[in-house]
Amino acid sequence: MPVPVTLADIQAAAERIRPYAHRTPVLTCAGLDALALARGRLFFKCENLQKAGAFKFRGACNAVFSLSEKEAAKGVATHSSGNHAAALALAARLRGIQAHIVMPHTAPGAKKAAVEDYGGRITFSEPTRESRQSTLAAVVEQTGAIYIPSYDDPRIIAGQGTAAAELVEEVPDLDMVLAPVGGGGLISGTAVAVSELSPSTLIIGAEPANADDAYRSLKEGRIVPSCDPQTIADGLLMSLSPLTFGIISERVERIVTVSEEAIVSAMRHVWERMKIVIEPSAAVAVAAVLGNDLDVTGKRVGIILSGGNVDLERLPW
Amino acid sequence: MPVPVTLADIQAAAERIRPYAHRTPVLTCAGLDALALARGRLFFKCENLQKAGAFKFRGACNAVFSLSEKEAAKGVATHSSGNHAAALALAARLRGIQAHIVMPHTAPGAKKAAVEDYGGRITFSEPTRESRQSTLAAVVEQTGAIYIPSYDDPRIIAGQGTAAAELVEEVPDLDMVLAPVGGGGLISGTAVAVSELSPSTLIIGAEPANADDAYRSLKEGRIVPSCDPQTIADGLLMSLSPLTFGIISERVERIVTVSEEAIVSAMRHVWERMKIVIEPSAAVAVAAVLGNDLDVTGKRVGIILSGGNVDLERLPW
Repeated sequence: MPVPVTLADIQAAAERIRPYAHRTPVLTCAGLDALALARGRLFFKCENLQKAGAFKFRGACNAVFSLSEKEAAKGVATHSSGNHAAALALAARLRGIQAHIVMPHTAPGAKKAAVEDYGGRITFSEPTRESRQSTLAAVVEQTGAIYIPSYDDPRIIAGQGTAAAELVEEVPDLDMVLAPVGGGGLISGTAVAVSELSPSTLIIGAEPANADDAYRSLKEGRIVPSCDPQTIADGLLMSLSPLTFGIISERVERIVTVSEEAIVSAMRHVWERMKIVIEPSAAVAVAAVLGNDLDVTGKRVGIILSGGNVDLERLPW
Repeated sequence: MPVPVTLADIQAAAERIRPYAHRTPVLTCAGLDALALARGRLFFKCENLQKAGAFKFRGACNAVFSLSEKEAAKGVATHSSGNHAAALALAARLRGIQAHIVMPHTAPGAKKAAVEDYGGRITFSEPTRESRQSTLAAVVEQTGAIYIPSYDDPRIIAGQGTAAAELVEEVPDLDMVLAPVGGGGLISGTAVAVSELSPSTLIIGAEPANADDAYRSLKEGRIVPSCDPQTIADGLLMSLSPLTFGIISERVERIVTVSEEAIVSAMRHVWERMKIVIEPSAAVAVAAVLGNDLDVTGKRVGIILSGGNVDLERLPW
């Protein structure tokens, strides 16, 4: 069935962001292969090494550079306390326009600093959904900036899909590709890219068991929203939207859920053995492969490492 | 003047280790470029992502696969409490021979575990130079294993030079290449590769001010050994040998020294901004570029990130 984001959209996004985004490396690690049940072969697409430290830059960059001169003139705006905020601020700076970011005043200092370093203008809200949305509405009203959502937008999804497109281009014959699932922007873009470019490759989502709304949504055949999820994977707290739910229902084979303990353990394995810094949300997809729930025996498995923004003062071990 | 390791040796080493070693990525980071004095452009050759977590695997692999069947039959041996130990153990395993590693009984548990994970057989010594050497002599006597030194060996130097050869092949027109200096194996191989493949590129060594024997040796024109150096960069404690001193004197432009504080700060910047794990010894070369001592204004600078083996329980911040 057709979905509202096409391979052509992803290819156009790839062209659009090429001058600005890193083509991130695909790494392998014999030490982690050996840990994976029955020794699958793992290929890690390192979006933690992307600009602004996460895949989010791809979508934000695609959205910002998709705007007409007139649309772009008054800048862009979003609400985010996470990687989308920094990604949008950087994309806007690269286009030479202003980014207005609504953040809860409770956001970590490092997240605020990242946005300000990229020239983003922060407006603080209360840490509630209602306050974030009303504050954003006021900012958009005052500035005339264009709202760029963090995932519920075809331009964002097409941008995120460019990571998986690079992965399957570089590593053919993957048996499956895994990506973590929050609001569903990354897995949706991944699903479109992989299903079109490598039709025999299965697309698997990975979620914290403590924030398993996508797992439950797929099972029940309707969007089951998250309700105050508590997980260390703080990039995966959002619920699916109709747009991402539709794509996931159509193209994702299954969602694997993992425990908090497995997330921390996978994160540490990647730091120790691969010598790269990943955030807990990225470790969720690694945990899915290192656990017992998914059979990767003899399989070639692509994993999108979604980001690497962590506070080095507060490591979970 | 000719030196006892040639470009042909490095090219032969590259062929020999190709089936076993990673071709590590070269990463760039706008955030670190901006930190470098007057915005040089930095190119990081990521040997922290090499097998066994350090460039040492290149030299060890070259040495092990240089042995004849007869030489290799009784295995290899070395004394090392660091990255050479794990590198040699892995190289030996890949050739299907035994590695005998002499380590001080005071070595960190993680270092012992790494050697054992690769199938190396550990013999403990006292933590003195004399005990290490006499224990190694006894092991070699008993087993008939071939001694593979950690740096004072043309096969090791040729192997280490393959990293810089890959770097200058991938990034032409570098104005300078930096590598840290311990016993001098890495900088010697780097110097031969770069001076032959990219003659206009300067070769710069980086040393902790607290372990500045190479700096003093170059200045005095003779080997000035380290005397119980105290530095967090625990891979850089060894002194130059006549072999490495000769190559460095001939081909290295200068040695830059950096403080302990600058090493920790550079290490943290790389973790935070590049999202990769480097060990203090690797941070020494980064510190040299981020400090005021070396002018990189508008320059294209290659940096060999030598390794990423750290204890995540004991970070220096």
